[in-house]
Amino acid sequence: MSPLEFRYYGVNKRLIERFSPYVTERARLGYELRVEAAAALVLARRGICSAAAAGEIARACAEVPAEEVAAEEARIHHNIRAMVNCVQRRIGEHARPFVHFTLTSFDVIDTAIAARFKDCTREALVPTLIELEAVLIGLALREKARVQVGRTHGQHAVPITFGFAVAQHVSRLGERIEAIQRAGDNLRGKISGAVGAYNASSLLVADPMAFEREVLAEMGLLPSPLSTQVVAAEYITDYMHSLISCFSVLADLCDDMRHLQRTEIAEVGEEFKPEQVGSSTMPHKRNPWNFENVKSLYKVFVPRMVTVYLDQLSEHQRDLTNSASNRFLPEVIVGLAGSAERLTRVMGKLVVDEANMAANLQKTAGMVAAEPLYILLAALGHPDAHEAVRRLTLKAQVDGAPVWKHAAADDELAPYFARLTAEQRRVLEEPRAYIGCAVERTEAICAEYAGKLGISLA
Amino acid sequence: MSPLEFRYYGVNKRLIERFSPYVTERARLGYELRVEAAAALVLARRGICSAAAAGEIARACAEVPAEEVAAEEARIHHNIRAMVNCVQRRIGEHARPFVHFTLTSFDVIDTAIAARFKDCTREALVPTLIELEAVLIGLALREKARVQVGRTHGQHAVPITFGFAVAQHVSRLGERIEAIQRAGDNLRGKISGAVGAYNASSLLVADPMAFEREVLAEMGLLPSPLSTQVVAAEYITDYMHSLISCFSVLADLCDDMRHLQRTEIAEVGEEFKPEQVGSSTMPHKRNPWNFENVKSLYKVFVPRMVTVYLDQLSEHQRDLTNSASNRFLPEVIVGLAGSAERLTRVMGKLVVDEANMAANLQKTAGMVAAEPLYILLAALGHPDAHEAVRRLTLKAQVDGAPVWKHAAADDELAPYFARLTAEQRRVLEEPRAYIGCAVERTEAICAEYAGKLGISLA
Amino acid sequence: MSPLEFRYYGVNKRLIERFSPYVTERARLGYELRVEAAAALVLARRGICSAAAAGEIARACAEVPAEEVAAEEARIHHNIRAMVNCVQRRIGEHARPFVHFTLTSFDVIDTAIAARFKDCTREALVPTLIELEAVLIGLALREKARVQVGRTHGQHAVPITFGFAVAQHVSRLGERIEAIQRAGDNLRGKISGAVGAYNASSLLVADPMAFEREVLAEMGLLPSPLSTQVVAAEYITDYMHSLISCFSVLADLCDDMRHLQRTEIAEVGEEFKPEQVGSSTMPHKRNPWNFENVKSLYKVFVPRMVTVYLDQLSEHQRDLTNSASNRFLPEVIVGLAGSAERLTRVMGKLVVDEANMAANLQKTAGMVAAEPLYILLAALGHPDAHEAVRRLTLKAQVDGAPVWKHAAADDELAPYFARLTAEQRRVLEEPRAYIGCAVERTEAICAEYAGKLGISLA
Amino acid sequence: MSPLEFRYYGVNKRLIERFSPYVTERARLGYELRVEAAAALVLARRGICSAAAAGEIARACAEVPAEEVAAEEARIHHNIRAMVNCVQRRIGEHARPFVHFTLTSFDVIDTAIAARFKDCTREALVPTLIELEAVLIGLALREKARVQVGRTHGQHAVPITFGFAVAQHVSRLGERIEAIQRAGDNLRGKISGAVGAYNASSLLVADPMAFEREVLAEMGLLPSPLSTQVVAAEYITDYMHSLISCFSVLADLCDDMRHLQRTEIAEVGEEFKPEQVGSSTMPHKRNPWNFENVKSLYKVFVPRMVTVYLDQLSEHQRDLTNSASNRFLPEVIVGLAGSAERLTRVMGKLVVDEANMAANLQKTAGMVAAEPLYILLAALGHPDAHEAVRRLTLKAQVDGAPVWKHAAADDELAPYFARLTAEQRRVLEEPRAYIGCAVERTEAICAEYAGKLGISLA
Repeated sequence: MSPLEFRYYGVNKRLIERFSPYVTERARLGYELRVEAAAALVLARRGICSAAAAGEIARACAEVPAEEVAAEEARIHHNIRAMVNCVQRRIGEHARPFVHFTLTSFDVIDTAIAARFKDCTREALVPTLIELEAVLIGLALREKARVQVGRTHGQHAVPITFGFAVAQHVSRLGERIEAIQRAGDNLRGKISGAVGAYNASSLLVADPMAFEREVLAEMGLLPSPLSTQVVAAEYITDYMHSLISCFSVLADLCDDMRHLQRTEIAEVGEEFKPEQVGSSTMPHKRNPWNFENVKSLYKVFVPRMVTVYLDQLSEHQRDLTNSASNRFLPEVIVGLAGSAERLTRVMGKLVVDEANMAANLQKTAGMVAAEPLYILLAALGHPDAHEAVRRLTLKAQVDGAPVWKHAAADDELAPYFARLTAEQRRVLEEPRAYIGCAVERTEAICAEYAGKLGISLA
Repeated sequence: MSPLEFRYYGVNKRLIERFSPYVTERARLGYELRVEAAAALVLARRGICSAAAAGEIARACAEVPAEEVAAEEARIHHNIRAMVNCVQRRIGEHARPFVHFTLTSFDVIDTAIAARFKDCTREALVPTLIELEAVLIGLALREKARVQVGRTHGQHAVPITFGFAVAQHVSRLGERIEAIQRAGDNLRGKISGAVGAYNASSLLVADPMAFEREVLAEMGLLPSPLSTQVVAAEYITDYMHSLISCFSVLADLCDDMRHLQRTEIAEVGEEFKPEQVGSSTMPHKRNPWNFENVKSLYKVFVPRMVTVYLDQLSEHQRDLTNSASNRFLPEVIVGLAGSAERLTRVMGKLVVDEANMAANLQKTAGMVAAEPLYILLAALGHPDAHEAVRRLTLKAQVDGAPVWKHAAADDELAPYFARLTAEQRRVLEEPRAYIGCAVERTEAICAEYAGKLGISLA
Repeated sequence: MSPLEFRYYGVNKRLIERFSPYVTERARLGYELRVEAAAALVLARRGICSAAAAGEIARACAEVPAEEVAAEEARIHHNIRAMVNCVQRRIGEHARPFVHFTLTSFDVIDTAIAARFKDCTREALVPTLIELEAVLIGLALREKARVQVGRTHGQHAVPITFGFAVAQHVSRLGERIEAIQRAGDNLRGKISGAVGAYNASSLLVADPMAFEREVLAEMGLLPSPLSTQVVAAEYITDYMHSLISCFSVLADLCDDMRHLQRTEIAEVGEEFKPEQVGSSTMPHKRNPWNFENVKSLYKVFVPRMVTVYLDQLSEHQRDLTNSASNRFLPEVIVGLAGSAERLTRVMGKLVVDEANMAANLQKTAGMVAAEPLYILLAALGHPDAHEAVRRLTLKAQVDGAPVWKHAAADDELAPYFARLTAEQRRVLEEPRAYIGCAVERTEAICAEYAGKLGISLA
Repeated sequence: MSPLEFRYYGVNKRLIERFSPYVTERARLGYELRVEAAAALVLARRGICSAAAAGEIARACAEVPAEEVAAEEARIHHNIRAMVNCVQRRIGEHARPFVHFTLTSFDVIDTAIAARFKDCTREALVPTLIELEAVLIGLALREKARVQVGRTHGQHAVPITFGFAVAQHVSRLGERIEAIQRAGDNLRGKISGAVGAYNASSLLVADPMAFEREVLAEMGLLPSPLSTQVVAAEYITDYMHSLISCFSVLADLCDDMRHLQRTEIAEVGEEFKPEQVGSSTMPHKRNPWNFENVKSLYKVFVPRMVTVYLDQLSEHQRDLTNSASNRFLPEVIVGLAGSAERLTRVMGKLVVDEANMAANLQKTAGMVAAEPLYILLAALGHPDAHEAVRRLTLKAQVDGAPVWKHAAADDELAPYFARLTAEQRRVLEEPRAYIGCAVERTEAICAEYAGKLGISLA
């Protein structure tokens, strides 16, 4: 029934292999068992239980199958107690009391979530995003000098290069990858008991905060500065924000590519396999369906941030109205990863139509000079260059002659025009020259993020 | 990975049995095949293909297995064409051209969605909601006369009955069930071709709009008044709105029940099974986890309406950025249905603590008279009854004596007080009498919705 | 500070004149005073107060200035009580008790909101939307026969007419106007007291529900079937949904126009005034800023529906957490109206570039025949017309010759081709002929909504 | 018409004084003029214009009145060009060309937004939030040792102190203040021209990136690493996220206080002024209207984050569909600030009802021992302490005797019970002793954030 399962994630072997250790219900249980084992280990370190007991618990935690826990939960209607029961069945009587000892359910649940999202981010999500970043860098560098008209408001503006256009996405995606990494690394756990005041653990250990730090360190985590029954919600909220805001960056790329693929623009294209059917009744169509797919998934996921914000609210030492909603968070991770993986495939084989790109640029080539002309006239002291050029462009639109020709022929402007250097005239006459620092910026941004993210430029 | 699959829907046999014919990927395919068969049937009626061909197509459509279509789609990357190929393999050469004949993919897809959501609404969703409504009506009638303090701002206001409190939910849920039914019945299909102008069908039939109406009638649908490649988005938008706004009504019920279950209030309780574990370290707790669960799912689903609104936008004769998002809509149906089914179970066994309800009412019994006192003083001509009573209540808060006693003893008010009838005094002295029309309104609302929705009051 | 005030609504004299009687804080107070006057009138009808008292109250309600109420509220921190005090100051002692008599604040507030939104819808919002609908109908009819290429996925599909493209918006906007009218007319009031059980009014009148109906009838409203302290939230929720979903229809129109205005497409344009500056440094640009503005406001308002859904939840007989949020609802009305008014202006002067529209169509003219060719081949019995045509289009893309020429020259297809009628060949050879029922559908839809909404077609 | 203007911000003199330099339309213009002056200054430094010209421009920028710009914009329909015209009127002919020289409108607009939001954050928003934090710290420290029952699921759990409950909010608000400060400081500007490639500026300066850095440094900003016509959207997105997620923390505080104020709980109260009217017909009510107000505004603002995410998407080198929506961002700042200011007032005078707090704790005092009993039994080697205690609590619920008494009397448990230390028994017998590290954690968190945010603890 879930489209993620049957269509967008569950049928993608590569994604499954990479993300299953973190996003499945089985993974949830595995991490929870690891928290139980870690707690027992630290108990043993303090002599509260024997090393043998902690060892038995650790072994049992490594063995308990998900199916057994599910069956036990169906019986007693409490997931963590069910898990504890399954562990206890596997160990000696002397060890049993020390399973889940002094812990509350959410010590285990919240710590496990933080640890698996953190690990997932490091081991699966960020690598997936970096693969896309690498493809974008490769494309940006390859296309760094191919002149393309810049577009604002869907209208031709002044030229850039296609590589520079791609570098926009390199820069923004690179920055978001770093944001995701930071937010993932900052996820927090807790071992502070039912209401966050260490009521239970302080019965047995003299330093419950140190105890908490040690257990969490086993999971690679720091504690929430102050917790209630649960970790302060802001760490996961920041993490989800990093994912959603990154999804926006992907969606923005998709919109750009979709529009560049419009029949009248046709500057890029998704590669089509010969046997692929574009449209069931218009067989000649080449629809940008991969970009459409990612944009569509973006619309699915972006409002989910509202749920995350609402889940920051929890009455007193917590209500449980964020429990079911919490279980949907891995869908966002997988939705983002699946979209990135799809874009990696498509952008890696993006076809650029050099001829159309040049032809489109040519369409307004005569007008592009308006901006540099106005700048140069002003620099030469013309008192109202903007208005003067605006009048010329109206003429140019009527007769189709380039703006610079009108300027050269204009009685008022001719004296200024005569004072231009050869290089300045070239920019006016040849829009391909008016690309500012597009090439240098592309190179610099690509080098910067390749360096930061460990991407080889070879 | 999907929590709906492994936890909230996919493990509930009753829900699966009821909803699987409509919400699964398999159901999607089944409905699409039915559209193909219906189109062939209407072609045959007009003599465009033979009745035999239409019959072969219908038989093939009833047979094609989902797995075969999935395999074909993996090969050619087009889901509708894949389905058509699978049908064509099963039929004679003479019939093959008439499969999917003059149709565009979204004639089939959008019509199939409308038909299965409409059927799902009638056959599965509305019956599920009516079961909850029936439980609420039963509870409201049983509790129609049990006096409970009304609460506004979380503060005691004036009395109602618990049945009347439940009747609020009867009324609102009943009204939403009718809204869902209406919106479901108003879903529309289309057989108007690639851009909605009947380009293809008008090549072969003289009356393409009549052709469309006939094919849709086979599916139980009316056409979109004007379509592009797709049905006008507003029909499905209204439908989703009816679901989401109904989910709010369920969530409101959950909040009320959660708060009535607070330790200090304790007027109602979820029934606990003896072997059920309430808390892993505080075994005495009785947490309102079913209500919390529904509230949490509500937070998951309410923002999804934003996706639906965004999907009303589609460039020109349509872009495809609403395709993937569309596939998530059945999750909302199932999320709502699962929540209703859970509430039916819980509300059906709701425990009402009569003693606590009475004790809570008693807490402010002395103050409740403030409102009727003010009304009656004013009716007797007191020029500023509101202010007079306000002053009395401040006194009453200090010494704990009932407001009416202060009034009776007040020099200024005594003359008015003396003119009250015995019945009016009874209301002042006995807050249990000050419940207005709570009982009659409860009965009337329950009777109204029982009648409208075919619920037996026996 | 509010952009609606200083930019999008507050500086538009026409909007202000039309909407001020409904959307301002002053209007809120005016409607609340009308509810007070109506309640007094019905009291007098039953002889609970004198006709003279009701008359005094009505006169006072017509006089109380907003500034006085604001000053009183600043003193006592209760807006309805402040209003009541101001009324009472203006009337004789005998009439004073009957101001706000048996009412609770939200009897007045909720009834006033329903009445002013209902009136605003009928008198201001729907007329504003109908003005846009009239402009769209005029444009659709004028352009009903101008052939334009249909576009799906941003790709050329098969032809329509520009009028038909506009008719899509006529149909959807017309249908939404009707939905808004329905939802506006269905807004409900209440006169049922502090917790909805008529506690107070039943002290004095034998038929409190009839009393409620009469007071509401004075305001042009029906009662909420069952209320708490407030009207059941669903009526206003449905109303807001009708507005937001209509806003989506406007935004969709804007997206279409923005893209048709792209430099490479250039089929339409916003009219530019000679003195208008398109871009401060690229004076030749003609940016679609009005369409961009409406799309941007759409993004502002669409998520506000989430607030409306959240406000369906209110604890017990109500909490007050929907009070401040409620005050923002008129912004949605004004945002929608301002956007419609802007589009009326822009669409009324939309420039259509006939030459570009024809030239764009021509770009894929040779390919458009693919669809009718496939249909006709299939109708003639070709067993796999779809695949046959797909192969031809690949050839056509290589050499640029029309698909029909390839078909005519193809050994396998030639026999089928020879059996086509002259009319059928014309459709293949001339894409302008392949427009299905575009003209008829445009005429029919325009006539339908002109009739329903009272728009003259002259 | 805007409720922020007439009710929540525009009538609060303290807020207006503090925020007007940043959030008004006038402030917007002022910052834009400062960008123009800064650009001229840096041009002069490079000798592109004279120091005298830059001086004239700076003086003119300091003088231009908002009304004149508005009038000019009404004439030419371009806000930045209107501003430039107004500056140019005030200066000599020699200086005129150097106004807005090589800049594009959004160099000015985006840089001005970043600078004023950054300044607003430092000078107005963070100080406002710190005032609330200081009040919360004061309250937490004052109440650090007052025992209160901890509540999870709305049910009594184990004890904390009220100060510890407040410390939860101290910790979370403190952490968010730091997040807001970081995000505000990280806002970025740009001086990179119409498409972000420095096309215009590179005509005149050899080092356009250095030129950009210098102009931005005048405004206290760093550049966006790569920009298009606009700054990369993520900086402002992160900033808005920091605000919205902080609003959630305030709303969570409000929910807690509202529920603690419930009639049956009554542990805290908003201070009421003697002349304040609580309810127009129930004069004895003390409604938590300030907390309700903030919660309600939260529901208004939280969905606005969706707009911010959608505005991360902008076609190619930008479309303008984020322009109007951008203008609404200051409303979020003001909404958050107004809510914080209100909470500062209310929390500063929060009344704590010591007697009720103690009485509520007492209600489940006999059950609280269940958790420590289970822990201690387990520590003493009981093999299934959880189940043993669960059975005792069922007994305790029946007869009302404390759990520890049942344990002491239980044949199986008595041997364990006898081995408890005196201190351990005290915790079982006296729930007030079972508060873990509540006091120490409260002190530590308060000291930490007082230190970080410069709050005096005196």
